[in-house]
Amino acid sequence: MARVTLTRGPFDESVHEGLVAVWRHGDGLVEAWGDPARTVLPRSSVKMIQALPLIESGAAEAAGLEARHLALACASHQGAPAHTSLVREWLGAEGLAEADMRCGAHWPQDRATSNALVRSDGRPDQTHNNCSGKHAGFLTLNRRLGGGTEYVEPDHPVQRAVRAAFEEVTEEDSPGYGIDGCSAPNFAASLEGIARAMAGFAAAADGVGSGARAEAQARLVHAMMAHPLLVAGEGRCCTELMEAAKGRAAVKTGAEGVFVAIIPEKRLGIALKVKDGATRAAEALIAALLVRYGILDAADPAARRRMAPVMTNWRGIETGTARVSLT
Amino acid sequence: MARVTLTRGPFDESVHEGLVAVWRHGDGLVEAWGDPARTVLPRSSVKMIQALPLIESGAAEAAGLEARHLALACASHQGAPAHTSLVREWLGAEGLAEADMRCGAHWPQDRATSNALVRSDGRPDQTHNNCSGKHAGFLTLNRRLGGGTEYVEPDHPVQRAVRAAFEEVTEEDSPGYGIDGCSAPNFAASLEGIARAMAGFAAAADGVGSGARAEAQARLVHAMMAHPLLVAGEGRCCTELMEAAKGRAAVKTGAEGVFVAIIPEKRLGIALKVKDGATRAAEALIAALLVRYGILDAADPAARRRMAPVMTNWRGIETGTARVSLT
Repeated sequence: MARVTLTRGPFDESVHEGLVAVWRHGDGLVEAWGDPARTVLPRSSVKMIQALPLIESGAAEAAGLEARHLALACASHQGAPAHTSLVREWLGAEGLAEADMRCGAHWPQDRATSNALVRSDGRPDQTHNNCSGKHAGFLTLNRRLGGGTEYVEPDHPVQRAVRAAFEEVTEEDSPGYGIDGCSAPNFAASLEGIARAMAGFAAAADGVGSGARAEAQARLVHAMMAHPLLVAGEGRCCTELMEAAKGRAAVKTGAEGVFVAIIPEKRLGIALKVKDGATRAAEALIAALLVRYGILDAADPAARRRMAPVMTNWRGIETGTARVSLT
Repeated sequence: MARVTLTRGPFDESVHEGLVAVWRHGDGLVEAWGDPARTVLPRSSVKMIQALPLIESGAAEAAGLEARHLALACASHQGAPAHTSLVREWLGAEGLAEADMRCGAHWPQDRATSNALVRSDGRPDQTHNNCSGKHAGFLTLNRRLGGGTEYVEPDHPVQRAVRAAFEEVTEEDSPGYGIDGCSAPNFAASLEGIARAMAGFAAAADGVGSGARAEAQARLVHAMMAHPLLVAGEGRCCTELMEAAKGRAAVKTGAEGVFVAIIPEKRLGIALKVKDGATRAAEALIAALLVRYGILDAADPAARRRMAPVMTNWRGIETGTARVSLT
């Protein structure tokens, strides 16, 4: 079982259990903890899959999108100016506006941005939504496909294209979807199906294969690795782990305790789900797996901060830590 | 097993498991889910125990404390003006100041208060700490006991008095402590020991027993039930459930998925711990248990909001719900 235990003083205080599937392209399932056939909702961890039709349709090329736009399309960002300004610039260049988005607004996680909004009596808009880059991608794809304005409807051409790509790379018929925080359908798959998809991205980024699919996969992985700050933001797990990995892995979190990793040099894809949905445990596990597969050193500060954090209280007094076990 | 399952569309997305112990004063363990002998850190759920020495020492009477002060001593509040102004008034009347506190400062959970601080370029102080009422109580007790300034040290007279009361009402020798978010030691006990302690509070509030201990227990339970808003705050689970219970139960949350209930009319004490520490699951379970023991109707809005919430996304679209099972 994959387990993350939180301690306080001499006591184990809380315990998280995780499911993990590790897939090697061309070989199959390498390792698993828990049942890799379990159906999961991958949430934001599969934004690089949701971005495939944007490239494969020719929409990205027509819109002149660069690596930074593609990284943002794969992002769960914290709504800092670096993120929102790029979304606005992108939409503007396409003759689109914030009002065309269907992700909804929420307060940005970036504290400085949030405080600036409070001070100016402002309100967040849809560009602050952590998924706004994905939605800019959906809108750009929609211009190419000529669909209606409600591009998050499950039977809209945009989402039909996303579902087709999702089923192709997971090599499964999706059993259905849930509606995500950003209103887009989030298609379900087995955990190993998601790991298999990530292994496909890894192989493509390592130069395996050719054609539109492999090219799109490679571009997205390299875009994420080249722009860690755009994929999440300062202090965030995805950003810090990708910066520490120095171009050797792309990682992506999803709500409710999901995390994936793409390791091109080993053609490995990792997918994990914490049963109870806890982000803190998903972050600890993905860091431990990057160490296990030789991408990060166990002493790497970014890895340690997630795997074995020194937990402190409001006066800075150390109260406990966490430990990961993969047994 | 006590279980809370979160759904999204047709899928079970995340699952929490809980341990529950229900104790009836004079009878013993009534029901349990999971191992009731498991050692847990009760965190803020036992603030009414930590407040016993404040009353039993005579300190509360000497300071002229009323029910509202006692409710605040048992609170994990959200730092709204109702909470912070009472703490300041209390400290001031004792010739004490915010600087005498040792809980540390954190941003108040109350959004309006937090935003007002941001707008005025202010910073939270220790009165905003959710435990500031408990610390006002510790400081008041300390004046009576004549201890040094570092009243959160585990061997300080204040914490020795707390430990003695804790071991007496749980009827266990505590195996030790962890340091809490507010820097006070948090003594461990078995889950059933905590339920037993809560049953003692329930019986005392129902008029069972006499003497300083029973009087103090009854005063604290009645203070919590009389001032639900002081115990937590607007929109918070403890407040809403106690308002719905209309004086028939006191409930209190603790960090890392702990919750207790005191039901005087049945002389019942309930203690629960969600294994992974999730607050959302602890809230769902305590609401379900209040329904199970006849305190709340299953259709009560406050109970339903925790047990079977309608979960919506950033555009207000319904995405899922939760279900509690006690099997």
